[in-house]
Amino acid sequence: MGASPLFYDEPLHLVRGEGVYLYASDGRRYLDCYNNIPAVGHCNAQVVQAIARQASTLNVHSRYVSDNVVEYAERLLGTFGAELDQMIFTCTGSEANDQALRMARMLGRGKGMICTDYTYHGNTEAVSQVSPLFHRARQYFTEVRTIPFPDSYRPLDGLSGDALADAYVAKVQGAIDSFEQAGIGLAGMILCSIFANEGLPTVPPGFLEKATNLIRKAGGLVIADEVQAGFGRTGKMWGHDLMGFAPDIVTLGKPMGNGYPVAALVSRAELLDAFRDKVFYFNTFAGAPVAAAAAGAVLDVIEQQHLLDNARRVGDYIRDGFKRLATRHPLMGDIRGVGLWVGVELVRDRGSKTPATADTAQLVNLLKESGVLISRIGPYDNVLKIRPPLIFSREHADELLDAVDSCIERL
Amino acid sequence: MGASPLFYDEPLHLVRGEGVYLYASDGRRYLDCYNNIPAVGHCNAQVVQAIARQASTLNVHSRYVSDNVVEYAERLLGTFGAELDQMIFTCTGSEANDQALRMARMLGRGKGMICTDYTYHGNTEAVSQVSPLFHRARQYFTEVRTIPFPDSYRPLDGLSGDALADAYVAKVQGAIDSFEQAGIGLAGMILCSIFANEGLPTVPPGFLEKATNLIRKAGGLVIADEVQAGFGRTGKMWGHDLMGFAPDIVTLGKPMGNGYPVAALVSRAELLDAFRDKVFYFNTFAGAPVAAAAAGAVLDVIEQQHLLDNARRVGDYIRDGFKRLATRHPLMGDIRGVGLWVGVELVRDRGSKTPATADTAQLVNLLKESGVLISRIGPYDNVLKIRPPLIFSREHADELLDAVDSCIERL
Repeated sequence: MGASPLFYDEPLHLVRGEGVYLYASDGRRYLDCYNNIPAVGHCNAQVVQAIARQASTLNVHSRYVSDNVVEYAERLLGTFGAELDQMIFTCTGSEANDQALRMARMLGRGKGMICTDYTYHGNTEAVSQVSPLFHRARQYFTEVRTIPFPDSYRPLDGLSGDALADAYVAKVQGAIDSFEQAGIGLAGMILCSIFANEGLPTVPPGFLEKATNLIRKAGGLVIADEVQAGFGRTGKMWGHDLMGFAPDIVTLGKPMGNGYPVAALVSRAELLDAFRDKVFYFNTFAGAPVAAAAAGAVLDVIEQQHLLDNARRVGDYIRDGFKRLATRHPLMGDIRGVGLWVGVELVRDRGSKTPATADTAQLVNLLKESGVLISRIGPYDNVLKIRPPLIFSREHADELLDAVDSCIERL
Repeated sequence: MGASPLFYDEPLHLVRGEGVYLYASDGRRYLDCYNNIPAVGHCNAQVVQAIARQASTLNVHSRYVSDNVVEYAERLLGTFGAELDQMIFTCTGSEANDQALRMARMLGRGKGMICTDYTYHGNTEAVSQVSPLFHRARQYFTEVRTIPFPDSYRPLDGLSGDALADAYVAKVQGAIDSFEQAGIGLAGMILCSIFANEGLPTVPPGFLEKATNLIRKAGGLVIADEVQAGFGRTGKMWGHDLMGFAPDIVTLGKPMGNGYPVAALVSRAELLDAFRDKVFYFNTFAGAPVAAAAAGAVLDVIEQQHLLDNARRVGDYIRDGFKRLATRHPLMGDIRGVGLWVGVELVRDRGSKTPATADTAQLVNLLKESGVLISRIGPYDNVLKIRPPLIFSREHADELLDAVDSCIERL
């Protein structure tokens, strides 16, 4: 038997998905406010047809030339700033981040990588070292330094404004200095553009740009992990555009093929050329015609259905709805997020900000019983994690808000 | 634009695949004697239908329960010896090998991994260290030792028989000792069950069993990389069954989904449980219903079309054919292989065994011009690499043999 970590005390046994709904074996329907992989909707017909059509025509690896793979690569690169002009395909976000780490360690000034103390970037041996979120115990790796993630709700040393951003930047400087003193040197920094796994904190303005400049000046590369932030989730195509910083490497994954395993690393030609001078990179399934067909259909749907606009509008609508609910529910301590990524931090008391961890767990389970799927996140597991498919509408948002309203009453 | 290493001086621009044939944009048809991923045939209708059906029904990650994923896992494990009774899904062989290295380094006696000096196991930062085949320069990694691959055609120190097997086993012992002396300790050994990338050498009888026992006794784990050897390629379901050794971990990939990105790691429950006690392993796309549907359809076709038998019979037929050709072509120095994996080593002289590297390159290109796709491999790039889809028939074999016969005449 296979073994995998499962959601919920009573795992959900699913049999069907359609749009923003999932159906269980007992016939129950669930509004999916959690899954960010089926960004254009569960079982989207355009994507399924693109996969089926290409899979019955041709599917070979990338050592032969296939038109639709080249076309997709050019189309994808067209969505990035001009300086990010080359890419490699991978199958998963973990693979993309693994190659990104290899690149930074080969092309940066040393081997040291900086990440936040509450992040996750993937499951390979190298990437797991920059993924303290899922470390079973506090682990130390010679070539990794963590910094506290930038947070305006629970700020470092109680600071605010520029002083707060600068305090977090000083932590980056400290990590750089530590690598230099240890003779390890700096390779770079890897960050989720929206700090999704950290609980989607409101980043102090200026931090990302200043930190990026600091890393560059010290000879390191900045990797923006857009596996969660990318493909319109934030209302912009790429999280780093919204957040105002310019990475050297961008990694993509989850929603890229709406569930088909396809991912990528985007960078500057000069960096990718230098990387390929040092390593032979080939990936059997990556950049195959079916992967490109699935990914191309996802871009089609994003464009045709104006999903960036939708993410912005419906995301704001949800946040506004939560703000109204918060006037009646003091449990809601902070409502935040970007586009269709909404975080609601639950606290026992708005003054002390004591995390309402048990209430959060109970609320997630009550919502499931009410037919609404969300999850929770953050260092105290007290942040409602809401990131539905990008086709989520206002009507769906109302269904979510009504359910949260009535479930909170039952806590 | 994307960038990828390409085959042939004039890359093949493909537009369609069907069964054992690939079609180029200029209308030409090619007999595919090279691709081992589409094991049940390019664009196999059963696999395409299974993918399309499942993709229109449900595709979620493995933190929900999906029947077909559990069913596939049980079915796959049923093809292994009883002691290999648990698995995790990955998306690629590289990911499977990366997790295998993590397991060995966590559960073995130390961090040291042994591999051969001419192998490739994948593209992640960790796996690339045990993949000297594609190292741009001779590279040294603290936690890796290489051993010469076991070869009866170009044997170590000119030995043969038991003495040859023991000489290679002594190299394994030397690597173990080296790790102990360096204070690194042994994690284990990773081997392709049929040494595919090494040029498919004829392994001295006894080597694999003895080496396995040695590693175990020293507290290490043996990883059989069956990404190329598995799923019937050798005429047996798993290469280690044919080759007579019992690995602790088996990694799978390439043909598992006939091109759909799905791969796996199979081991003993006790080892996987101990691993999961130490790490949180989750893989977004792995073990999803569509991956299981594709992989299940591949098993269906392998059974329904008796492809293990076919691999054995047609593989032997090809080898017999090459042996007949060899009576007229002294260039053919050694004809070897298992099942539908055939290697033909070309030499300038059968006595000195001087590699006929340039002739091999020319022959591969002449065959392409004749409409037959193969490649070459081995430390001297002088071994014809023939590993067609498993549905390859005697008629296809005759087409290959005739083409080789006439192309050799033109060298």
